[in-house]
Amino acid sequence: MNFSRRSVLQGLGAAAWAIPSPLAWPKPSAGERIMVIDCHGHYTTAPRELETFRQDQIAGLKDPSRAPPSASLHISDEEIRESLQLQLKFQRERGTDLTIFSPRAAGMGHHIGDAAVSLAWSQVCNDLIHRCCTLYPVNFVGVCQLPQSPGVPPAKCVAELERCVKSLGFVGCNLNPDPSGGHWIDPPLTDRWWYPLYEKLCELDVPAMIHVSASDNPNFHATGAHYLNADTTAFMQFLTSDLFKEFPNLRFVIPHGGGAVPYHWGRYRGLAQDMKRPPLAELLLHNVFFDTCVYHLPGIELLLKVVPADNILFASEMVGAVRGIDPETGHYFDDTKRYIDAVAWLGEEDKRKIFSENARKVYGLDRRAAPAGPR
Amino acid sequence: MNFSRRSVLQGLGAAAWAIPSPLAWPKPSAGERIMVIDCHGHYTTAPRELETFRQDQIAGLKDPSRAPPSASLHISDEEIRESLQLQLKFQRERGTDLTIFSPRAAGMGHHIGDAAVSLAWSQVCNDLIHRCCTLYPVNFVGVCQLPQSPGVPPAKCVAELERCVKSLGFVGCNLNPDPSGGHWIDPPLTDRWWYPLYEKLCELDVPAMIHVSASDNPNFHATGAHYLNADTTAFMQFLTSDLFKEFPNLRFVIPHGGGAVPYHWGRYRGLAQDMKRPPLAELLLHNVFFDTCVYHLPGIELLLKVVPADNILFASEMVGAVRGIDPETGHYFDDTKRYIDAVAWLGEEDKRKIFSENARKVYGLDRRAAPAGPR
Repeated sequence: MNFSRRSVLQGLGAAAWAIPSPLAWPKPSAGERIMVIDCHGHYTTAPRELETFRQDQIAGLKDPSRAPPSASLHISDEEIRESLQLQLKFQRERGTDLTIFSPRAAGMGHHIGDAAVSLAWSQVCNDLIHRCCTLYPVNFVGVCQLPQSPGVPPAKCVAELERCVKSLGFVGCNLNPDPSGGHWIDPPLTDRWWYPLYEKLCELDVPAMIHVSASDNPNFHATGAHYLNADTTAFMQFLTSDLFKEFPNLRFVIPHGGGAVPYHWGRYRGLAQDMKRPPLAELLLHNVFFDTCVYHLPGIELLLKVVPADNILFASEMVGAVRGIDPETGHYFDDTKRYIDAVAWLGEEDKRKIFSENARKVYGLDRRAAPAGPR
Repeated sequence: MNFSRRSVLQGLGAAAWAIPSPLAWPKPSAGERIMVIDCHGHYTTAPRELETFRQDQIAGLKDPSRAPPSASLHISDEEIRESLQLQLKFQRERGTDLTIFSPRAAGMGHHIGDAAVSLAWSQVCNDLIHRCCTLYPVNFVGVCQLPQSPGVPPAKCVAELERCVKSLGFVGCNLNPDPSGGHWIDPPLTDRWWYPLYEKLCELDVPAMIHVSASDNPNFHATGAHYLNADTTAFMQFLTSDLFKEFPNLRFVIPHGGGAVPYHWGRYRGLAQDMKRPPLAELLLHNVFFDTCVYHLPGIELLLKVVPADNILFASEMVGAVRGIDPETGHYFDDTKRYIDAVAWLGEEDKRKIFSENARKVYGLDRRAAPAGPR
């Protein structure tokens, strides 16, 4: 029996929306087509009203008369459906069954305004993601943006995280390791500063993807430098700390294939050894996972070679950082499933882990009850 | 005929020290052993007096009575010889003929003190490198540290660069893209801020290796994050600018295998295309080169696969960032020549380029007159 689109739809549709169930996303049995979960999708195609709202909000920082109340944003279901057609088309064409879906990363803009602005904006964005997931419960499951703000304790994000997970049925959050937007003025992720948030993540049993937002520093191009630097930076912070002794169940996904990390896997193994740290597998591979947003075959091959299959989650970041077609292959740069499929030596079991089983585990898809309904 | 150590020694010894010659480093002819030039070595084994001097200099920032005059540093030739034995041993054991040698990168500390402190410290460090190269002209050729200081125009570094190249026979410099030590407060490398330095680099016809120093930001581990982030950041700055139209002969070496860049080569090709920039080869591969400081075979394989052989310069960064032996191979992590030798599909011509011909070209070794003698 094939793991048909219809059976996925029925299983997911029922569980992810209406019926509380510990088996929200049914596991395919042996021999069935491997389910494909993309753990890294952003709502980059949101209706333009959202951006207009944000621009008004930013204008309101200087001229409070222009600041829009959150209730002033009106986007119809039809507009949301329309805005998701490109995402759905790519899902169909590329064979993705489910996208773990979050607000546009560059749009989070935690460095803009204060914590109140960040909270209002985050709630608007998260509510919109919830509506996407409600309209297409088979295709999308939500991950939230946190109302971070530079210099403001992450403890202030706990309520919004809890709201998104408990009331909206979200399965994780994006955590910005540098809410200043490229000035890196807050403490490292291993500082107690972040612990209240980690405690809540553990209590809710959901992971965080480490993801910066736009760069406010002219040195850093966002998608070409700041994103990858943050990935690399976070990994090295984890390597030098005992964070996971304190939080053995805390789970982080490092996106963009882990930044520079897998390419420099030998360097990291060597640095850990020089510092008398445990081997990487013991030190952090129970807690740190990498996605597959690497946009060429040699990069994906390297990732699959050096990082254990248990620690790799399929992702494409579509529709995202790179939107064009690679003239060398004739396919979209970010059609990452093609690269993985092209690695002949990758075994079926490892493929299954990478394409869906790891995402199920890390995001707890199998043990999540469905959300209670619209707020 | 083999390209014997003796012939290298005679050729280099004569030319690099006493006799001005446009053929300072003789090219081996076809069939000879490939000469191996390591373009990235730091004087990490300097006598402890140097560090004591630096600590006194730093103490002098608060208590000027402790500030040491540069002339107070006394290191004998014998101490220098002794301090270089480990470097020479590794050269012999690993088959390196010549190391392009510069002051310890983490020690540059451009963020400490002001421009005057940075200048005094840079001169001391550069003079010491010159003495190394004088004592072992066959083994080492110098690259200088620049007296950069955060917020101070790079034009202020021109005199020391000129002194090092013209009087000390150095073949390049290390250029810190973030003299603030991880706060990234100066303009990007593509800003006119840097142009006077680039004009001098072009006039002297020497390259710069992009290399940050220690991190003053608790978010960034130096060798595990800051170094690699800077490499990635610089590349993306170049990708988004027309710097090399302004300076067609400007040459940069991006160390540590290019940070995250080759692993994300598809991403960079795609970003350039999305931004309507020319293909990378046309945009920057006449001007930007990567070294091979990648400490495991899969990483080196990736680098050799995606970056043209014309743009790769052999390097190990020894004795440097990672000092231990890889338990998986039984060899030093930073014995990078082994990885390259292990890539069976790498042709002889490409090997020759990577091991020495590219370094000869980029650092202008063949067209350099030897230095005029000790100052």
